[in-house]
Amino acid sequence: MSAADLENLKIAESVPNLRSEIAAARNAGLKVALVPTMGAMHEGHLSLIRAAREQSDYVVVSIFVNPTQFGPHEDFDQYPRPFQSDIAACTDAGVDLVFRPDVETIYPADDETVVNLQRLSTILEGAHRPGHFQGVTTVVLKLLNIVAPDVAYFGAKDYQQQLIIRRMCRDLYLPVEIVTCPTVREPDGLALSSRNEYLSHQERETALSLSRCLRFTRDLISGGESRLDYVRQEMVAQIEKTPGVELDYATVADAESLEEPDRRSGPLVALIAARVGTTRLIDNMLID
Amino acid sequence: MSAADLENLKIAESVPNLRSEIAAARNAGLKVALVPTMGAMHEGHLSLIRAAREQSDYVVVSIFVNPTQFGPHEDFDQYPRPFQSDIAACTDAGVDLVFRPDVETIYPADDETVVNLQRLSTILEGAHRPGHFQGVTTVVLKLLNIVAPDVAYFGAKDYQQQLIIRRMCRDLYLPVEIVTCPTVREPDGLALSSRNEYLSHQERETALSLSRCLRFTRDLISGGESRLDYVRQEMVAQIEKTPGVELDYATVADAESLEEPDRRSGPLVALIAARVGTTRLIDNMLID
Repeated sequence: MSAADLENLKIAESVPNLRSEIAAARNAGLKVALVPTMGAMHEGHLSLIRAAREQSDYVVVSIFVNPTQFGPHEDFDQYPRPFQSDIAACTDAGVDLVFRPDVETIYPADDETVVNLQRLSTILEGAHRPGHFQGVTTVVLKLLNIVAPDVAYFGAKDYQQQLIIRRMCRDLYLPVEIVTCPTVREPDGLALSSRNEYLSHQERETALSLSRCLRFTRDLISGGESRLDYVRQEMVAQIEKTPGVELDYATVADAESLEEPDRRSGPLVALIAARVGTTRLIDNMLID
Repeated sequence: MSAADLENLKIAESVPNLRSEIAAARNAGLKVALVPTMGAMHEGHLSLIRAAREQSDYVVVSIFVNPTQFGPHEDFDQYPRPFQSDIAACTDAGVDLVFRPDVETIYPADDETVVNLQRLSTILEGAHRPGHFQGVTTVVLKLLNIVAPDVAYFGAKDYQQQLIIRRMCRDLYLPVEIVTCPTVREPDGLALSSRNEYLSHQERETALSLSRCLRFTRDLISGGESRLDYVRQEMVAQIEKTPGVELDYATVADAESLEEPDRRSGPLVALIAARVGTTRLIDNMLID
């Protein structure tokens, strides 16, 4: 990373500063992309940034550990915040602008507006993390309004989240394209997550049971098993026989509605959420 | 109204049609104003349109009787829909574009995104009409995203509504200016409302008690009365002694927060909601 590279990356902490940078890009006729992140960047985030870099002219990355999407007993305080290495990664990846607001910018003292999806936000992750998706949709809507990008990038790893954000943008007629990029995995199958760094060596081995169960599920259905209730029982049984994994849910759902019928009527997604030690992990796999 | 005038007013029923008209106005460098209405236009709506006409280049009026802001036992079906005379009024007032979506455009079958203000939407009108403001904020956010105006106009008659919309736009960083225009009144003080046409001659006389009480309240406070709890008791007593009026609330509140302290700390607003016969009326008056 050279000094010249560093000069090319701008950092905005206030909305007016961000908006004046983006107005300049817009006036130059550039297509603007937003990659919203909570920082602690890994190869998954970098794959989003690379897609944005390839498909747009001006790449904005937001780094904001959003307090409202953490539950009262979750890991907000503990969540990694390696700002310097995140900036280095953004510089290397050719990001044009990092938006790093403080909590008061996004949530002023008397802020009280929230966005909810009445069904999609209440099932699966929403059932296990009450309020989580309200925090997600509210912060994403603010970021989309602040940056006003042509296109925004999200990871398939948070499958329900990207579905909810797509639905929110459609329902609210937001003039933005949502792109979902594939989950990035370690060679042994573990889905990349900023929370993987909480795992001990032993727990990391145990965590492989999630992606293993997803591949098993995909193979079972691809092999002709059409009784989805049976598939779900098998998923749960397989995870529950693994020592050290505490299951939140393991299921197969319609890939668009996340409804859980016994017979498929279109593309499916297999979804798992489980705790390994004190670390909560999620993973999913599309079954076309 | 001449044939040439009629040609100048365009009507869009779909979002793509609306957006292509507005894109043309934008490309011509015009400042775009939105006046959201439920139709049944009276002099109050026309005052908003005139303000928009004076302060902007391109005036869009939306006409949409929004089902989600009516409660299950309210007057959604009965609400007046005089579309032809609304169009004539818009033409006379120099409106450029009327947006008249159907319910399925604003609320497609699987629509599920809603916006709420966690405090402001739950008090006063919000307490008496559960879900009302969720309906208002959700539809206004959709309309603002569809039209993307530079400025939008609301009436002071719906005082809490305009406060909520301002707060929503600020909290969500919507790049739009909100302008509130003064309540328009009949010579005898009755605030204009599309619901006034429900009133019998006798009820219309009775309805004057609302604006009379507001003037009384303003004069009491302007005259030096600083005990707001006492003022509230007097308001309630005055309304309750009027035959044929069933009070929902009568109060004096902080003009910004709508909190109800006993001592003022800034501008105040006096607010009344009451039923006259089967017609629910609201009115308010600023006390600076």
